[in-house]
Amino acid sequence: MVLPELKMRRDKIRVFMAQQHIDAALITCNVNLLYTCGQIISGYLYMPLHAPARIFVKRPNNITGELVHSIRKPEQIPDILIEDGLPFPQTLMLEGDELSYTEYNRLAFLFPEATVVNGTPLIRKARSVKTEIEIENFHRAGIAHAKAYGKIPSVYREGMTDSEFSIEIERLMRLEGCLGIFRIFGRNMEIFMGSVLTGDNATVPSPYDFALGGAGLDPSLPIGANGTLLEEGRSVMVDIGGNFNGYMSDMSRVYSIGRLDDKAYAAHQVCLDIQEKLIAMIKPGVNCETLYNTAIEMVTTAGFSDYFMGISQQAKFIGHGIGLEINEMPVIAPYVMQELEQGMVFALEPKIVLPGIGPVGVENSWIVTSMGVEKLTNFGEEIVDLKS
Amino acid sequence: MVLPELKMRRDKIRVFMAQQHIDAALITCNVNLLYTCGQIISGYLYMPLHAPARIFVKRPNNITGELVHSIRKPEQIPDILIEDGLPFPQTLMLEGDELSYTEYNRLAFLFPEATVVNGTPLIRKARSVKTEIEIENFHRAGIAHAKAYGKIPSVYREGMTDSEFSIEIERLMRLEGCLGIFRIFGRNMEIFMGSVLTGDNATVPSPYDFALGGAGLDPSLPIGANGTLLEEGRSVMVDIGGNFNGYMSDMSRVYSIGRLDDKAYAAHQVCLDIQEKLIAMIKPGVNCETLYNTAIEMVTTAGFSDYFMGISQQAKFIGHGIGLEINEMPVIAPYVMQELEQGMVFALEPKIVLPGIGPVGVENSWIVTSMGVEKLTNFGEEIVDLKS
Repeated sequence: MVLPELKMRRDKIRVFMAQQHIDAALITCNVNLLYTCGQIISGYLYMPLHAPARIFVKRPNNITGELVHSIRKPEQIPDILIEDGLPFPQTLMLEGDELSYTEYNRLAFLFPEATVVNGTPLIRKARSVKTEIEIENFHRAGIAHAKAYGKIPSVYREGMTDSEFSIEIERLMRLEGCLGIFRIFGRNMEIFMGSVLTGDNATVPSPYDFALGGAGLDPSLPIGANGTLLEEGRSVMVDIGGNFNGYMSDMSRVYSIGRLDDKAYAAHQVCLDIQEKLIAMIKPGVNCETLYNTAIEMVTTAGFSDYFMGISQQAKFIGHGIGLEINEMPVIAPYVMQELEQGMVFALEPKIVLPGIGPVGVENSWIVTSMGVEKLTNFGEEIVDLKS
Repeated sequence: MVLPELKMRRDKIRVFMAQQHIDAALITCNVNLLYTCGQIISGYLYMPLHAPARIFVKRPNNITGELVHSIRKPEQIPDILIEDGLPFPQTLMLEGDELSYTEYNRLAFLFPEATVVNGTPLIRKARSVKTEIEIENFHRAGIAHAKAYGKIPSVYREGMTDSEFSIEIERLMRLEGCLGIFRIFGRNMEIFMGSVLTGDNATVPSPYDFALGGAGLDPSLPIGANGTLLEEGRSVMVDIGGNFNGYMSDMSRVYSIGRLDDKAYAAHQVCLDIQEKLIAMIKPGVNCETLYNTAIEMVTTAGFSDYFMGISQQAKFIGHGIGLEINEMPVIAPYVMQELEQGMVFALEPKIVLPGIGPVGVENSWIVTSMGVEKLTNFGEEIVDLKS
């Protein structure tokens, strides 16, 4: 990672720190270290507002540099700052939504005179607008994601279950370079690589706040495929996350086993229409709630509102920022007045679940440009019959 | 899940609560809900010391029962307790090592009169001794894990890289029923399904505190396979985690591409000898440090201490408890005076890394019985030549 890029990212955070009169940040969560240091370490980035940042590293033991200090424990940090003549912060920012209660207090105690504030929202705000290098990573991810999806029909075999189909698609993604790991913000959110949903399993509510649910294969992971046979007349939605370089691309496509009932194609078209309409609206300055409300109006007019984003339990969003985690800012949801900005990257996923058939709809990843949007996951969006 | 089992698990926690004069626990982290409720929900288990536990559930919306309350937010919990005439706790336990700082404070604020303490160590202590049903889950996991490993030679192709080999093994594990998700305690620990290490990549230190490292494919996940070709004369260690029912079985086996240098077989035998010696020692009452020190003495006598558990960065443990997370209590490490107890389940993984060759050694999962130990991952432990 080139240093000017890291300096730019750190300075994006510093702008918000200055607005809130925060003297220094101590950053230690993996995705935030990846963002500010270009790699994951076991350690800390100490970033004063008006002085160069320093890295305090526990592991690995092969990282060196002028402003890199090897430590065994965070309690060594204040002494090193004193040795180097650096002032202690008056207001220190820690990752309050991400650090455990125990660890937050341990780190806050390093600077007992400082006022300690939660820096997570501020770092997430900085991360929500991507740099050119981050956007280039997303371009590469979108291409690889689409390439893997292009091979999906080749791994379908008659008589497969949803989970067997998922396993073959996971392999395609991994062979295309997907790292597999699926990073999510929020300690109670978890999924393996994504979900493959067919038939009525798509109607099953889950404990997780994803767009759709599914029973999963075991009560220990109640999300996604549950071993349902891929049967004639059912749709199957593939929503496997892409993580080809740390940046999570998001893409869903729908397949069918033979011909579906006509209303499935009608519902699918409604989702494509919603996508088309919203994408035509999106440019810097458009707010998230407006987009959400437009989608709800369209799906209501079309008569599918009871099946939109689930049935018995409906997700209350139609899109979300993506980045180093699958759920970044902003969320395209009701009451979110946040405006889109150039450089934001987001997934838009209008989906309808039809009882007796399964899920239809689409999901793509997009970048907000100066004039509108650019699609990252370029690939056909029609329902593909796996039997043809 | 049968209720007597859940009652037993909850009462195991209550015993420790009583010792520490804790009136009630509010549990909301996924693995702890899985342990106490038999399934993952988005919600809370409120567990008084001397009254039946209650479930407050946000998602999914299809869980019902006499002591189940549907809520939108945790702030509703105190009002429901008042309505039902339940006293507020004087000392409340929250999951302080697992909840974020923000969420811990939000929950603590529900009971402003209560003294709030960190319950994570206590819950982990309860979880470290498994029930018969948990042990039965581990038995099934060990069998499935060994069955998948039995197919590993069949997916080897000449000219493969470590990551291509890993992808095929991941698929074997998934087809055998592995849920894929790899749960770890500690917010900075992460890995995909496990690691496949060959040649000098096994010498590369990582930021994560696993037994071995590896550079990984990308700075965003610096662990495990890095695209190294599986070459003649190199060993390859497969350490893919098993999660077939929520319980993480742990198993490593070593393969070779053709014949290895003699010292590889000698080092491998040292690891097998260490395993044999320690397993003969293990029974309830043996402490972890004694086991660790015995291993260090043996590997030192054999002349491999500089290569034990890594080279430039050596892991300071040789085994660890396993359960709903891969790293449960106890840790078999220096200065750990904790004694093993009947019902504990652990992984033992003496491993040696040889420059120019790769890793050798073994890892199995074991249950502490009344008299000794029982092996869960029954499978040949010799180095298997993939070319033969």
